[in-house]
Amino acid sequence: MWNENRVTDLLHITYPIIQAGMAGGVTSPTLVAAVSNYGALGNIGAGYMTSTQLREHIQEIKKRTDNPFGVNVFVPETPEVHTAQIEKVDTYLAPFREALNVQKVAVNTPSTITYEEQINVIMEEKVPVCSFTFGIPSKEVVQRLKQENIVLIGTATTVQEAMANEAIGMDIVVAQGSEAGGHRGTFLHSSKEAMIGTTALVPQVVDRVQIPVIAAGGIMDGRGILSALILGAEGVQMGTAFVTSEESGANELHKEAILQSTEDASVVTKVFSGKEARGIRNDFVDKMEVYEDELPKYPIQNMLTQPLRKEAAKQQRPEWMSLWSGQGSRLSKRQSVRDMMDHIVEEIDHLIQHKLYKW
Amino acid sequence: MWNENRVTDLLHITYPIIQAGMAGGVTSPTLVAAVSNYGALGNIGAGYMTSTQLREHIQEIKKRTDNPFGVNVFVPETPEVHTAQIEKVDTYLAPFREALNVQKVAVNTPSTITYEEQINVIMEEKVPVCSFTFGIPSKEVVQRLKQENIVLIGTATTVQEAMANEAIGMDIVVAQGSEAGGHRGTFLHSSKEAMIGTTALVPQVVDRVQIPVIAAGGIMDGRGILSALILGAEGVQMGTAFVTSEESGANELHKEAILQSTEDASVVTKVFSGKEARGIRNDFVDKMEVYEDELPKYPIQNMLTQPLRKEAAKQQRPEWMSLWSGQGSRLSKRQSVRDMMDHIVEEIDHLIQHKLYKW
Repeated sequence: MWNENRVTDLLHITYPIIQAGMAGGVTSPTLVAAVSNYGALGNIGAGYMTSTQLREHIQEIKKRTDNPFGVNVFVPETPEVHTAQIEKVDTYLAPFREALNVQKVAVNTPSTITYEEQINVIMEEKVPVCSFTFGIPSKEVVQRLKQENIVLIGTATTVQEAMANEAIGMDIVVAQGSEAGGHRGTFLHSSKEAMIGTTALVPQVVDRVQIPVIAAGGIMDGRGILSALILGAEGVQMGTAFVTSEESGANELHKEAILQSTEDASVVTKVFSGKEARGIRNDFVDKMEVYEDELPKYPIQNMLTQPLRKEAAKQQRPEWMSLWSGQGSRLSKRQSVRDMMDHIVEEIDHLIQHKLYKW
Repeated sequence: MWNENRVTDLLHITYPIIQAGMAGGVTSPTLVAAVSNYGALGNIGAGYMTSTQLREHIQEIKKRTDNPFGVNVFVPETPEVHTAQIEKVDTYLAPFREALNVQKVAVNTPSTITYEEQINVIMEEKVPVCSFTFGIPSKEVVQRLKQENIVLIGTATTVQEAMANEAIGMDIVVAQGSEAGGHRGTFLHSSKEAMIGTTALVPQVVDRVQIPVIAAGGIMDGRGILSALILGAEGVQMGTAFVTSEESGANELHKEAILQSTEDASVVTKVFSGKEARGIRNDFVDKMEVYEDELPKYPIQNMLTQPLRKEAAKQQRPEWMSLWSGQGSRLSKRQSVRDMMDHIVEEIDHLIQHKLYKW
C-alpha cells in the first residue's frame, strides 16, 4: 500500500492488518490461524490465560498455519486486596449472583507469576510477535524477548505513552483511539484525559516517535484502513470487526449484540473489570455504574464479576455479560475472515484506483 | 480530489474545506474573507451576534471577497429561568467576579427573536450558505432559505441526527466527531452517548444518508483531510486549525493556549455555557466542574459567565477564559491562512502522488 511499510517488513506479513489480541475467548486458534493464513497477523489474547492454556493455543495455531502470529499479554498490576471493599461490592453483586445462582467467589491476591510464565512460554515456543497492553514491560523482559528475535508491540493511548513505549525498546506501537472496543490501554494518564479520537491521535503520535505506528479504534473496513494509513500509521489493528467473524470464539450473544448495535450503543466503564473498557451498555452497566468509584481495581473487580458473566452467557442473559465493542459497530458483519479480508483488499484497490485523483 | 465532489459543486468552492463558524469573535471578516478568497468556505460564527452585528460582518466580508461564504447560526433553545438556581450559581461564580471586579449580570429570558432576525439578515443579504448548530431549523425556515437558493448545512454527532438533518431538507450535513473543539452539536442524544470519534462516525453516517457529508473533529492538516475523504466524507470542516491563524480574531491568549497544548489537554464541559463544549482544562473548569449538574441550561449559564470571561481576557487571565480547542492541538501552527492552505494542498498532492500505490 505504501512504497515502504515497516510493519509488514518487521512482522513478515503481506497486509498491514493486525487482529487485536482480545482476551476472554474471542481469539480461538481457528480465528488466529485464519487471519495469519490470509497474510495478516493473528494474535492470541492471552490476558486471562494460564501458561498451560497459552501453550496449548500456540501449539494448536502452529498446526494450522506456518505464517507469523502473535500473543498479547497484559502487563500485570498487583493492587492490594481490601477485604472490606470486596465485601461491599459483593453486596452490590448479590442480586445478579442470586438470579443466576452463582456462588460468591474467593479473590486471590494478584501476582505477576502468570505473566512471567506467559513470557517464558512465548520464548520457549518462539512465537514471532509479542504485544503488551496496560503498560510497558521491564527492560529485562524486553531484552530477553529481543534476544529471541521476537518482535515487540506496545500499546499507547496518548503521545506520552507512545514515547514511553519507544523508550523501553518496543519495535512498533499501537495508537489506540477512543473509538476502540474493549479495555483502554491507558497507563500514564487518567482515563478521561486519554480518550483521544483516532483521527487526532494517530498523526500526533506519528510526529513524535520514530518507530512505526499501528492505528486502532473504529477501523472496520477498507475505508478505515486506508484512512489510517493516510494519517501516517503503517498498519491497523482491528478488534470488533473480527469479533463477529465466523471463526471468532466470541459467544453468539456477544456477536449478535454487536451486529445489532448502533454507533452510540457503547460506553467506557469500569464495572466489569475495575479498568475502563468500551462495551455495549446493558443492564449490568446501568445498575453498577453508580458504584464505579467504589469498585476495587483491576484485576480484583474482574475476579469478582468473572463467574457471574460466565454464567450469564450460559443462561443466555446478554444483559449481564461484558459485550465489548468499538464505536464502528454498525459496520460489523457476520462473515468469514477470508470474505472480510477479500472485501477489504478489493475496497482499498477500488479507493486507490477509482476515487483518488489530483486536486 | 475526487472525481465527483458534491460539496465543491454545491458550495461553488475550489477546495472542499469549510472553516467552522465559531462563535465568540474568532471569525473576523479578515479570517472569513481570507478563507473564501483562497477557494475554501469561510464562515461567520453568528451564534452570539445581534442581527445588526451580523449584517455589519456580512457587508465587511463582501467588500473583501467575491467568493461564497457562509453564516453559522445556533438553533435557539428557550429554557425557563429559575431564579433560585441562578442565585445559587451566582454564589459559585462570586470568587471569580470579585477577583476580576465584575458586576453580577442580569439574566434575560432566552428568546428566539435574535435567531429569527439573523435568518432575515441572511436572506436579505443573500448569503450563499447558512449552517446550523444545536438542532435543526423548522420546515418553514428551511423553505424560506431554499427559496433564496441558500445552501443549507446541518450539524450531527450521531447517525440519527444526520438522518434528521436530511429529513428536514439540509443539503449537506457535518458529522462532528468527538475530537472537535468548541460546542458539541448534539441535539437528539445525551452528551455521553454522542461522543463518537471521527474515524467511526463518518463512514457510518455516509452509509445512512444520501446527502453529502462533511467530516469534522481532529482534522488539522492534509493528512486529516485526505483521510476524511477516504472515509467517505466529501469535505471537511476545520475549527481549531483556523483559530491560531494570523487572520483569526481569537484572543492571543487563546491562540497561545492551543499552540502550547497537548492532545490530552482538553475536556468536554458544560461549565462555561451550560452546554457541552471541548476546551483546554484550566482553573475555571477545575473549580466549577463539581457543580456541573446544578448549572442552568444553555444559554442561561452562558449569560452568567460571559462578562466574567470577557474581563478575564482583558486582564490576561487565561485560567478563567473558555479556551475552545479540539484534540488535534499539537498540530496547530501560527500561520497565515494562505500558508496553511498552501501547505495543505501540497501535502495532499504529495500523499496522493508519492505515498499511495497498489497493494
